[in-house]
Amino acid sequence: MRFSRQMITVEDALHRLLERLGKQGSEEVHIGEAYGRTLACDMYATEDLPHFDRSPLDGFAVRAVDTVAASPDRPVRLKVVETIAAGDVPTVALAEGCASRIMTGAMLPAGADAIIMFEQTQQPAAIAAEVGIRRSLKPGENVSRRGEEIRQGTIIAHEGENINAGTMAILATFGYAHVPVVRKPRIGLLSTGVELLDVDQPLIPGKIRNSNTLMLSALIAEAGGIPLLFPNMPDDLEVAKGTLTEHLRLVDVLVTSGGVSVGDYDVMAALTDEPEAELLFNRIAMRPGSPTTSLMLQGKPIIALSGNPGACFLGFELFVRPTILSLSGRQEVRVRTIQAKLAISYTKPCPYPRYLRGWLVEEEGVLYAQPDFNEKAGNLGTLKNSECFIIIPAGGSGKQAGDLVEVLSHAMPSWKVREGKRL
Amino acid sequence: MRFSRQMITVEDALHRLLERLGKQGSEEVHIGEAYGRTLACDMYATEDLPHFDRSPLDGFAVRAVDTVAASPDRPVRLKVVETIAAGDVPTVALAEGCASRIMTGAMLPAGADAIIMFEQTQQPAAIAAEVGIRRSLKPGENVSRRGEEIRQGTIIAHEGENINAGTMAILATFGYAHVPVVRKPRIGLLSTGVELLDVDQPLIPGKIRNSNTLMLSALIAEAGGIPLLFPNMPDDLEVAKGTLTEHLRLVDVLVTSGGVSVGDYDVMAALTDEPEAELLFNRIAMRPGSPTTSLMLQGKPIIALSGNPGACFLGFELFVRPTILSLSGRQEVRVRTIQAKLAISYTKPCPYPRYLRGWLVEEEGVLYAQPDFNEKAGNLGTLKNSECFIIIPAGGSGKQAGDLVEVLSHAMPSWKVREGKRL
Repeated sequence: MRFSRQMITVEDALHRLLERLGKQGSEEVHIGEAYGRTLACDMYATEDLPHFDRSPLDGFAVRAVDTVAASPDRPVRLKVVETIAAGDVPTVALAEGCASRIMTGAMLPAGADAIIMFEQTQQPAAIAAEVGIRRSLKPGENVSRRGEEIRQGTIIAHEGENINAGTMAILATFGYAHVPVVRKPRIGLLSTGVELLDVDQPLIPGKIRNSNTLMLSALIAEAGGIPLLFPNMPDDLEVAKGTLTEHLRLVDVLVTSGGVSVGDYDVMAALTDEPEAELLFNRIAMRPGSPTTSLMLQGKPIIALSGNPGACFLGFELFVRPTILSLSGRQEVRVRTIQAKLAISYTKPCPYPRYLRGWLVEEEGVLYAQPDFNEKAGNLGTLKNSECFIIIPAGGSGKQAGDLVEVLSHAMPSWKVREGKRL
Repeated sequence: MRFSRQMITVEDALHRLLERLGKQGSEEVHIGEAYGRTLACDMYATEDLPHFDRSPLDGFAVRAVDTVAASPDRPVRLKVVETIAAGDVPTVALAEGCASRIMTGAMLPAGADAIIMFEQTQQPAAIAAEVGIRRSLKPGENVSRRGEEIRQGTIIAHEGENINAGTMAILATFGYAHVPVVRKPRIGLLSTGVELLDVDQPLIPGKIRNSNTLMLSALIAEAGGIPLLFPNMPDDLEVAKGTLTEHLRLVDVLVTSGGVSVGDYDVMAALTDEPEAELLFNRIAMRPGSPTTSLMLQGKPIIALSGNPGACFLGFELFVRPTILSLSGRQEVRVRTIQAKLAISYTKPCPYPRYLRGWLVEEEGVLYAQPDFNEKAGNLGTLKNSECFIIIPAGGSGKQAGDLVEVLSHAMPSWKVREGKRL
């Protein structure tokens, strides 16, 4: 079916792939290793937070009723009966006319119901037997009540959430020294093509160095997969079948680059005609990368990306990253597209939606999508500048500067400024 | 100077810190380990890219002059003299009336000056001794010329750039098996306070588990530093001086959390009065985290963050991340603030600029900044939701929904939808 492929949309292609994916099992890791992993189950608050009434500032714990008459001119004097540091358990219950020095995070003494900060007392720098209270306090003022932030038993993080630094903090607070996480999917990776040299090989006429494998390996790891690199594969179909079958035993998904088009030696394209293979898709309504292919072999998915570096990069973001996130059990498998105003006109006709590499620009609260001026998909030199894909719909007229376009953000925006003149 | 600190702006504080930082030396790493590192020098194209005239598609290499009369109705028939796969060196120069089958990425044969794709020939699926060319070609059509993407000697990536997946690809293409990168800075990390328990210790009255160290450790590693965790430090000033002096020998910068306020046991605050210490700042016009402190000791910077988890988190992004990026020699040390429309009104008065945690929302190309509804800085449970800080200027009236506000984006936007009703 070299020249008679059935074209489907990016959406349909991704759907066909995702519905064939299982989910990884789980494992426990020490919390120190949990950053960037995916929670394998809901996590609960093991205690109230805070788990005792505490002071949110440095000052004096008082009985509010004792401060009713206090003013800057006529401060109320209270007897200081104790100093309570963070970590201490107070030993003295406050009686009428008494106060305790209390530090940020320290436990409120019995009898106290309000806290005044040092700066609102007389002579805040002095440590003395008495304190002058310069304003009245309401019961409960400046007291962090037990459980006011989080009640014991509340869900603090959900299954399928990425564990970020904030998640680490809340898990540590509730004593989760070990965290149940989803096992990282093992993503096999190889390139096809006898023209490929390794990075440390000298160039010879007709051949080029393999750039896709190192690029994809970095992206796989960054997306949360374990990249397993296999040697470049020759273009012999029988050898390829045997090799891929062996590799598939070791991985959850196999990602290849190259060999998907209509060339005489395009082994991944040829493979889709074999009886052992179940084709998921091999022609997608998109530029670049329309021959991007996926098939099932030995019950496992192969995602065969284009060998063109730009198309390979796009194919990773459209198909491989969601695959890794889905296998990882992530809540959000697909990046939400947003809308932005096109920063410069792009009027080149295209029969399919075109994904331009670029970046987001912000001006007075309005989002602009700046296409990289070098639109050549194969241009290796500008891959590193890409932070998003700008989707130009199919058709003959493209989009004008200022038109709203769909944007797929694939990297953290660096909020670069716009290139070229302002609109 | 417990109650008489000099207040400075966030900008000034960061400036005072950054001007005291040196730059790390460099080292060579294998390209497989280079992702996320910072380039230590400019990198150059070692060859032209492509380094030979090549075909960007699967088809036939021809002499354009032979195709002048070709049309769909009257195809020109050419003799096929060779098949050139990617990686091959062509062996036959094209004579008049001849063509070579040529695959994507393959070297152009001598004599050829244009390429026609299979689909524009007669019977594209057949491999035959002749080919029917169904349209005329211009000289140079569909030929990727040597050096057309990048000329030998061009800078392909600059000193101080982060090495992302695209950088990996271009470095691999030019044969950089080893890459000069800036050494990762060693960031010491400890918490102060006897109230802190480790994550695996049971809670006891008055004490809490340490959440800042694990959170900061994850953030330091993510920002490109090597976190070195030291034990919690007691609040004895003399012991602290000795301990910190020892730790500083092992690190480039020391980050602490806690002990910066006006409490009786705030050891980091007390340290700034010691003759060995040179104070950089200890009061910043911001909420939360105004007592965030920095000092030089033994010629090395200490950044003493607030122990309050929300203030600690903010202090990391405002001061520690730029420190790590600066030590790493990164081009962009500071995150550019952007503007967005405030999604909901925030009218609480504040004497200093207030940094609200939140996230960016996009609606029809307009950016909105959505504050997290729980504004309590100490609220550990919502740290994980934060993707940006929304800066509410000092003053009595705050900002209304729809007002433009400054936003500091600290994590990749997940483009969540807005909470609450639409404007």
